[in-house]
Amino acid sequence: MSNQERAEHHQGGVYSSKGNLFERDTRYITTRIVRQPTPGQDAVAVEPGRYRLIAAKACPWANRALIVRRLLGLEEVISVGMPGPTHDADSWTFGLDPDGLDPVLRIPRIKDAYLARDPHYSRGITVPAIVDVTTGKVVTNDYAQITLDFSTEWTEFHREGAPDLYPEHLREEMDAVMKRIFTEVNNGVYRCGFAGTQEAYDAAYDRLWTALDWLEERLARQRFLMGENITEADVRLFTTLVRFDAVYHGHFKCNRNKLAEMPVLWGYARDLYQTPGFGDTVDFQQIKEHYYVVHTDLNPLSIIPKGPDLSGWLTPHGREALS
Amino acid sequence: MSNQERAEHHQGGVYSSKGNLFERDTRYITTRIVRQPTPGQDAVAVEPGRYRLIAAKACPWANRALIVRRLLGLEEVISVGMPGPTHDADSWTFGLDPDGLDPVLRIPRIKDAYLARDPHYSRGITVPAIVDVTTGKVVTNDYAQITLDFSTEWTEFHREGAPDLYPEHLREEMDAVMKRIFTEVNNGVYRCGFAGTQEAYDAAYDRLWTALDWLEERLARQRFLMGENITEADVRLFTTLVRFDAVYHGHFKCNRNKLAEMPVLWGYARDLYQTPGFGDTVDFQQIKEHYYVVHTDLNPLSIIPKGPDLSGWLTPHGREALS
Repeated sequence: MSNQERAEHHQGGVYSSKGNLFERDTRYITTRIVRQPTPGQDAVAVEPGRYRLIAAKACPWANRALIVRRLLGLEEVISVGMPGPTHDADSWTFGLDPDGLDPVLRIPRIKDAYLARDPHYSRGITVPAIVDVTTGKVVTNDYAQITLDFSTEWTEFHREGAPDLYPEHLREEMDAVMKRIFTEVNNGVYRCGFAGTQEAYDAAYDRLWTALDWLEERLARQRFLMGENITEADVRLFTTLVRFDAVYHGHFKCNRNKLAEMPVLWGYARDLYQTPGFGDTVDFQQIKEHYYVVHTDLNPLSIIPKGPDLSGWLTPHGREALS
Repeated sequence: MSNQERAEHHQGGVYSSKGNLFERDTRYITTRIVRQPTPGQDAVAVEPGRYRLIAAKACPWANRALIVRRLLGLEEVISVGMPGPTHDADSWTFGLDPDGLDPVLRIPRIKDAYLARDPHYSRGITVPAIVDVTTGKVVTNDYAQITLDFSTEWTEFHREGAPDLYPEHLREEMDAVMKRIFTEVNNGVYRCGFAGTQEAYDAAYDRLWTALDWLEERLARQRFLMGENITEADVRLFTTLVRFDAVYHGHFKCNRNKLAEMPVLWGYARDLYQTPGFGDTVDFQQIKEHYYVVHTDLNPLSIIPKGPDLSGWLTPHGREALS
């Protein structure tokens, strides 16, 4: 992952203000979880039951990790804790859990696990984060690396028939595709929504739609981004697309078209949504609640739209013919 | 016009705030302009060249008056002054005109004509307003009556072949249809957008979509609201529909569907848009600028969306077969 592909997400505070551009804080806790740490490497060892993935359903970056965990069949070896859709000044909380505590970590806020790791921690309190349940400390919140390590370091624990989401022979092309998807789409919608000037917004909008038109064309010829099989690139694109009409179209003003008006991308997104591991990790209500309640600088009254009509997500997509 | 059908629009100030419902101020200057004022009637006489319609292109209520004036061919007898899309604390200004003055009234703000009428005027500074050019005073801002009087009192000056927009034999049914369109649609979108509580918004959204579903069904059977011919009822519905995808869908959270996703209403709206007198009074840029810049309590950064793609408005509507 290039540095550009690291970003900080969904922390509390001010998201946008007049005159400012939106720039992601890209400093992470980058300890890795690997099969066999090498001397000097900032890494700990893979171990079933030892790590807990903290991943809010609302958050697209966390959603990735939930999908990859499901696709690979890592549910039994990596547990999941789920903060609710909104958060307070201390970021994500376990308000949906009994007594407001994560049932394994016994903390009310993910911030506590960050402070356990570093009492002076002053950067973003983000999800996804992986916590070592034996110490209660955050191991990593480097979301781009987390999913790749699920694919390449946890292979021993993959379910039988698990897909290879990061195939060796495709990595060079995949990395380029994922980079463009990150800068132009995943982060592109935020650049539109958090733009503090009309010029910044206009430029962000043009970049976003240039990329979506490129994807509309690419996916007209093949079922998935890298060909006939689902890869990590699809996971990364999906988590933005599934939020598009519900949030980004209106809240972030990404409104040239709805996803539902882009025939290829809409079919592609439904194809993935209807694949086990994708749609079953999506909670539209939490997604809407998160964005519309948390970003009071964009939506001061915190009213959550009732729309859009979501019934289309389960309609036939007709993409099987492409593979 | 019932009292409910009178409303106050687009004045400066606060539009919505947390916890408040949206209620229109319904007090107007209700002097009428009629063929023959009767003794004791609060009315002045029709006279070509004497009255100036002040109507911002951005405003749906003013848009009505522009359309009706065009359909009836009253351009030569009633002149038009056009404030720009945004306004200051004193409401609509003539900022687009040379030197920032209306070229006939020679005033920078429509407020000046309200104060000329009543130095203690303290209610809404709204458009449309009709000003007597000989005195510089506002005659009326009672928008619902303005267009009906264009139809029924200015008949002597209608162009040859002008439509009867308020036909005698249809008035009873028309009044009921227009009342429902006003409360549920014209004002309904504002009730969604300016709702200060989730409950108020949710209720407003349900009412709006119930009404739009009713219209979708009604217009599946007939080309226009009252049958085969365009009437004032169509004008009133059109000015909300034409703003729907550009503003109300996102800005006011009327987002179950886009108008472009409602096949009948979308065909109907395009049919009207492509009729001389309708589309040529519509300025999407001014419409977007108005709502997104003026309502800082909904859109604090005043960013104006670049979307939606508007190219569909000129596509064939296929509604001719219905009449």
